Amino acid sequence: MDKMIFAEAAGRIIPKEDKIFGISNRAKRATETLGKDKVINGTIGALMDEEGELMVLQSVDQIYRSLTPSEYAPYAPIGGTAGYKEAVKKELFGELELDSFTPVVATPGGTGSLHCAITNYSKKDEKILTTDWYWAPYGKIAQEVGRQVEVFEMFSQDGGFNIQAFKEKLQWLSLVQDRLFILLNTPAHNPTGYAIAVDEWQEIIDHIKTIDDTKVTLLVDVAYIDFAGEARKQREFFRLFENLPDNILVIVAYSMSKTYTLYGLRGGAAVAITGNQDIAEEFVSVMEYSARAAWSNTSRLPQVILEKAYADDSLLKKIDEERRSIRNMLLKRGRIFAEHAANIGLEMVPFRGGFFASIPTDKAEEICQLLEGYGVFLVPLAKGIRVSIASINVKQCQILPQIIKEAMDKIG
Amino acid sequence: MDKMIFAEAAGRIIPKEDKIFGISNRAKRATETLGKDKVINGTIGALMDEEGELMVLQSVDQIYRSLTPSEYAPYAPIGGTAGYKEAVKKELFGELELDSFTPVVATPGGTGSLHCAITNYSKKDEKILTTDWYWAPYGKIAQEVGRQVEVFEMFSQDGGFNIQAFKEKLQWLSLVQDRLFILLNTPAHNPTGYAIAVDEWQEIIDHIKTIDDTKVTLLVDVAYIDFAGEARKQREFFRLFENLPDNILVIVAYSMSKTYTLYGLRGGAAVAITGNQDIAEEFVSVMEYSARAAWSNTSRLPQVILEKAYADDSLLKKIDEERRSIRNMLLKRGRIFAEHAANIGLEMVPFRGGFFASIPTDKAEEICQLLEGYGVFLVPLAKGIRVSIASINVKQCQILPQIIKEAMDKIG
Repeated sequence: MDKMIFAEAAGRIIPKEDKIFGISNRAKRATETLGKDKVINGTIGALMDEEGELMVLQSVDQIYRSLTPSEYAPYAPIGGTAGYKEAVKKELFGELELDSFTPVVATPGGTGSLHCAITNYSKKDEKILTTDWYWAPYGKIAQEVGRQVEVFEMFSQDGGFNIQAFKEKLQWLSLVQDRLFILLNTPAHNPTGYAIAVDEWQEIIDHIKTIDDTKVTLLVDVAYIDFAGEARKQREFFRLFENLPDNILVIVAYSMSKTYTLYGLRGGAAVAITGNQDIAEEFVSVMEYSARAAWSNTSRLPQVILEKAYADDSLLKKIDEERRSIRNMLLKRGRIFAEHAANIGLEMVPFRGGFFASIPTDKAEEICQLLEGYGVFLVPLAKGIRVSIASINVKQCQILPQIIKEAMDKIG
Repeated sequence: MDKMIFAEAAGRIIPKEDKIFGISNRAKRATETLGKDKVINGTIGALMDEEGELMVLQSVDQIYRSLTPSEYAPYAPIGGTAGYKEAVKKELFGELELDSFTPVVATPGGTGSLHCAITNYSKKDEKILTTDWYWAPYGKIAQEVGRQVEVFEMFSQDGGFNIQAFKEKLQWLSLVQDRLFILLNTPAHNPTGYAIAVDEWQEIIDHIKTIDDTKVTLLVDVAYIDFAGEARKQREFFRLFENLPDNILVIVAYSMSKTYTLYGLRGGAAVAITGNQDIAEEFVSVMEYSARAAWSNTSRLPQVILEKAYADDSLLKKIDEERRSIRNMLLKRGRIFAEHAANIGLEMVPFRGGFFASIPTDKAEEICQLLEGYGVFLVPLAKGIRVSIASINVKQCQILPQIIKEAMDKIG
């Protein structure tokens, strides 16, 4: 939409329809007309079972059912219920016992945290630095408040995190603006499935620590943390955020959407990590202010569900077990897809786990359009094609690489 | 908070703690230490029964309990589920059958609608016009996106809507800025309990129609519409929004918080009323864009609850009956409070119904502070004291006017 009729564009470019939503609608219509067996819908960002039905943890539904109106119906405090805030800390840092202030502000999903964090820790017209493979809504979240996304090349030649490209882009940004805001989505990165390794994290932190004259905000979006591998191992990198100098603020964007299979209930939080109590208190004030001004309070229901989970060890254990089982199913699908891709020489972006995998190509739009004719629905990105491993079954993981390969060969 | 340590103020004045939240906390502590009988907590914006417990419609809880995970757990589309959008229209305009486009975009409560509407239908540094008695968060919602609240005197000498003051301030605003954004909260206005009468609405609309060279957005916040009086009668004024010229856009901010006693589930919507299809379609695009960029999708649970209510006539009837009964209880409390105030000569701002009543005074802060010493917790505003009729019982409605009067006399 280039020109507004009644609304104000205010520098934003607003599409008539969300792209992924459009593809997803076509996939649904195709499933209805052609039948489930004739369609591969690799667009959905939710974990489906082998029959294509949404998977919801039974233990979580059990909590839903146990709640009384006085538990789910009242307003929650703007920043979240006390029990929720404690549970989120345990959820993220439980066994690490970080020697830092870790204030929590509840937000609707991870998106809400990003909105509040970008609003409060960057300036208008500044650039937010992220990887060149990134979840498209980051661009919208930034644009809405007058910021832009700047990217650095995510992968080095050997398929690891490209620390050199990161350093160079950060250096350039520090020359053109007052403060720095870095946004990294890991582990089980959307859209590639990559996880920044602990030694790579160490390099990142060591480098950021050399910047002593600028405020640096490092936002880590961990929306998929429980679908990358073993829970404790995936949380080890948080340890590196202890004892950072006061000019570095870490904010973790937490989401219950995937971890508790409660996509539609909009549970999430922003959690800061800092050694400075004043910065921690200011974080709560400014983040709560932005929350108040955008959506008021965050839905109480997911907060109470997390509280209940952490109030009952046997229940928490049951949730962990159920989650492990669906994670293993997901990781198995990913392995199968990757193996079949490797067997036929279909290149993939480095993949470690999670909901998505990506195929690099500069003709994503054309290939995806061709694939739709075969009943295959995938999401074209600037740098490639995103496949939701989460929403297709094992059999589809076996045959899809070949179908993509053929379409790519046809487009040439 | 005058100076930021790490965050960006970006022109905003951010308090360390939300004022109402602070009072509400002190009220809770007093209840714990002194006992329920010794405290009058008139701060809460939720309907409590005579024993001070939150009232939740049983018929609504019945829907909550009937839902399956596949109904509440998936993501909702950004703008809301199709069934929800239809139900919201029936909820607001059902029997009127407006001959207009009435596009709906789901939002977390009414606050979410206001955030998106102000972002898209006003410009940075412009002023939003509202009444001099207004819900304080309007100021925060506006300030967060770089707008300010400008007010006109709400009441005329005879206690009606001050159309003259409204016209004058609107005239002045049209000289200093490009477009106009008017925000009216009615019926059962927070904080006064006033309802703009249909003939007053007619005068407002007649006047706005004389402005033909400027885009005028009229946002009507109807959060308390079901607590002002009989449902159909309270909706009659919507009829006046039909057939307005294309330079006038009406947006209704709808909330399920009070109407369905689902405060904490964050169900709401922005609904436009326009005769122009392009403006209607643009509304959906820009509002969904802002939603996507702030909180992504709105919680699915309240949406499904509303869908279910409208899918079953007998259930809807049961909800209406239950709601009528709690509304009557609330209106009775209001009448009793107003009678006792009148009997002892305690002046009130014109009150028609709803959750709140207000006492005019320029010493609200001091009086409220004194009252806290007596175990009475009320909210001081710029122009007076707000009493939540919704959160105190009949006996408290009888004695509170006298207590307030004495405190006012003491302060002098």
